[in-house]
Amino acid sequence: FQSFSSLPVRRSVSLAHESDTIAAIATPEGEGGISVIRISGEQATRIAGRGFRGTVAVDKMSSHTAHYGRFVDEQGEIIDNVVALVFRGPNSYTGEDTVELSCHGGRYLTKKILELTLRFGARAAQAGEFTKRAFLNGRIDLAQAEAVADLIHARSERAHQSSLMQLNGALSAEITDVRDQLIESIGTLELELDFAEDGYEFTERSKVVGQLTATISRIKDLMSTYSVGRVYRDGVKVALAGAPNVGKSSLLNALLKEDRAIVTDVPGTTRDIIEESIQLGGLLFDLSDTAGIRETTDPVEQEGVRRAEERLSCCDILVLMLDTTRPIGGEEKKALSRLAGAVEARGASCVFALNKTDIADTEKKQTPELGQVVSDHEIVRISARTHQGLDGLKDLLIRKALRGMPTRAEGGVTITSARHYSALDRAAKSLVLALETVESGKSGEFVAMDLRAGLDALGEIIGATSTEDMLNSIFSRFCIGK
Amino acid sequence: FQSFSSLPVRRSVSLAHESDTIAAIATPEGEGGISVIRISGEQATRIAGRGFRGTVAVDKMSSHTAHYGRFVDEQGEIIDNVVALVFRGPNSYTGEDTVELSCHGGRYLTKKILELTLRFGARAAQAGEFTKRAFLNGRIDLAQAEAVADLIHARSERAHQSSLMQLNGALSAEITDVRDQLIESIGTLELELDFAEDGYEFTERSKVVGQLTATISRIKDLMSTYSVGRVYRDGVKVALAGAPNVGKSSLLNALLKEDRAIVTDVPGTTRDIIEESIQLGGLLFDLSDTAGIRETTDPVEQEGVRRAEERLSCCDILVLMLDTTRPIGGEEKKALSRLAGAVEARGASCVFALNKTDIADTEKKQTPELGQVVSDHEIVRISARTHQGLDGLKDLLIRKALRGMPTRAEGGVTITSARHYSALDRAAKSLVLALETVESGKSGEFVAMDLRAGLDALGEIIGATSTEDMLNSIFSRFCIGK
Repeated sequence: FQSFSSLPVRRSVSLAHESDTIAAIATPEGEGGISVIRISGEQATRIAGRGFRGTVAVDKMSSHTAHYGRFVDEQGEIIDNVVALVFRGPNSYTGEDTVELSCHGGRYLTKKILELTLRFGARAAQAGEFTKRAFLNGRIDLAQAEAVADLIHARSERAHQSSLMQLNGALSAEITDVRDQLIESIGTLELELDFAEDGYEFTERSKVVGQLTATISRIKDLMSTYSVGRVYRDGVKVALAGAPNVGKSSLLNALLKEDRAIVTDVPGTTRDIIEESIQLGGLLFDLSDTAGIRETTDPVEQEGVRRAEERLSCCDILVLMLDTTRPIGGEEKKALSRLAGAVEARGASCVFALNKTDIADTEKKQTPELGQVVSDHEIVRISARTHQGLDGLKDLLIRKALRGMPTRAEGGVTITSARHYSALDRAAKSLVLALETVESGKSGEFVAMDLRAGLDALGEIIGATSTEDMLNSIFSRFCIGK
Repeated sequence: FQSFSSLPVRRSVSLAHESDTIAAIATPEGEGGISVIRISGEQATRIAGRGFRGTVAVDKMSSHTAHYGRFVDEQGEIIDNVVALVFRGPNSYTGEDTVELSCHGGRYLTKKILELTLRFGARAAQAGEFTKRAFLNGRIDLAQAEAVADLIHARSERAHQSSLMQLNGALSAEITDVRDQLIESIGTLELELDFAEDGYEFTERSKVVGQLTATISRIKDLMSTYSVGRVYRDGVKVALAGAPNVGKSSLLNALLKEDRAIVTDVPGTTRDIIEESIQLGGLLFDLSDTAGIRETTDPVEQEGVRRAEERLSCCDILVLMLDTTRPIGGEEKKALSRLAGAVEARGASCVFALNKTDIADTEKKQTPELGQVVSDHEIVRISARTHQGLDGLKDLLIRKALRGMPTRAEGGVTITSARHYSALDRAAKSLVLALETVESGKSGEFVAMDLRAGLDALGEIIGATSTEDMLNSIFSRFCIGK
């Protein structure tokens, strides 16, 4: 079965290079009251002790105690007054000895203390390396480790809830349960294989068919939560597009209720893509106000238009804006149709926002012309200026974001990661194969092979089966210091 | 003496509104491994305890111990897994009971925990309020409190050193020493006044004259460090200006050794002011690449030019750039002279950087014309493209920044704050007045009054004399959470 789980790394196996001591700034970059430099590994107290001067030496400090002192460089020059907080392994985040040095929250000084810890023998931690060690040392499983990054990046209620549930083991429990079910099926089969070389009993077969059908349906249930879970975690990318001066910046401002974009009367003002986020219905919407779609000879503006079209190519929802106070030009009509077509061709949504309804002479006036452009798309009539119709637009955005799926009930496990979805998909496919083999009456050996492949795929989610490459790709997504 | 120290607030006096419990995010804003929410005040453990769920209740935790648990909202919904670290007053930063909650470093979740502490009874801390409490509770004096903000904002070696020395009491010790000297003089005088109603002994008078002369000279010595100290703390604002396409963005890039500004061949590319910082000789230089100085009818570009001129009006050093490969136009010549004149009129420096020396046919070619523009300014010949001459420019920038003053010796106290400089100035003026009165042989009463005024002015530096307004203005400069 090597092809399914090549180079398996069990998390009890500590890799050679994991035995050194790592250090990083654990708090966000920037200025604040305090920053924290985290040191983890066998030498953590020794390294912190080389710079720390206080009433108690760092290697004499009890676990979970904080001590005030000064942090000095090799020449004894004070770098800052700090608090050293010691966590002795295994009762630490990583499971190793850990020292957290809290210093004043300045960029320069925080970097300086980090540099000192490196000169004192620590290695600069890679992105996610503290959490990777927590995983390798068996403090958390892989799904939980991944949830840490999601929790940190969470910018909405739904993203926060789903990542925290995953961190605290809800998904892991579900996956472990499915795996246990599968292990039971494998057990039944293997028992059969041991005793009956040429086939197995019908009763056992129907039992396995029943179990497998139930397991597949459980996996598919989980998979079905991904379309919503993905939106929970990643939010929704909304691009505003339309002819120059149609009111894209004004709509963005209206949604944000503040003046973020510079609004002027000169077409082509928005050269760079402006991005802002709002929370609607517990979901995060990243709004981009793109440069107006039009031909231009100005190279700087051309660059802006190019970036805007790039942005349109990865949005989840495209809001095409029309100015209802003026006729729609042939060029504009063509451009809008082209954009709508391109976005929908890759499965994203497209809606029309008809702006300036507050000053349009009559709504009917342009109907035939509008009808051609809008065709069977959903439309909202708004006034970015008076905020009329904005609630309707917000509701439409939420509905399009969830693609008609209901939001998950509180407490329900949601798949939010493409990696998990893909692992579930492979598991389901293996089990379907197994089921077909069982039903065709073929040898149990083939069935067991497929079941093991399914088991391994599920194991990838919680890290029961994992490869070095897989771990690297997962933890590189983290920030440094976590 | 009310006019010198109206509404004195002694730091032993705790104001009424300081008795409530405050909370804020203490770490920099943004995403990172961990963030810390700090709660300080009588109710700190009670408030933290309302959300904390762990093996030990918060109000049972010993000082300086850390405890792992979960933080929940009113409905018991988990918001995050946290570490609660308790400092019991007076052994805390503020001198009050303090709880620091370390949570995962996400924006959304950190704000959510802060909001909960507010719902549980804390008040949102104002900027600098933790440090203000440290001052009001006698943990540090005012000069030390101010140094906290400087230390956090320090972005260069010199800024870091000078603020840390001030935090650790070097300036306070110096001021206290000067004040003690002054108090001795006042003592001598007051003793005199008690025993001799109509004048005082010549011997005592000459002793006071000697003491005062020494004190004044000490204060003036301190004041003289401000021209360098100000540069240590605030860094140096350097504006690059010149005709379009003269190479300002390229020079900025060369100094930064990376591509920060978009460099194109189209004049007028730089619309917004680009700011970057470099450290030269331990000093911070904030470089602005301003929009090219020229007439334009484009309103967006006009706005850019307006902002650029605004920036020029507050720079410490103006670097005027010329392209040595092309003739200098009459308009350009006028604009450069006007800018140089304006900058120098307010005491800032102006230097010329002659760019593109690598492709200029000959350096001599434009000398007569150049001479008129450059007149008696210092010039550096550079090539932003080949980096030739850059070291010369850097040295010139350092020299202009320090205005010919030597950098302060290690360990020497430096005045870095305008407030301290102004207080020293007032103190010196009062002592000079006192000295004149002594020398004129007038009554000791007047002398004592001036000496007291000087003492109060010095006291303002360390907060021995302070007003509510003064404190508010000082601490509003802090970030929230410190």
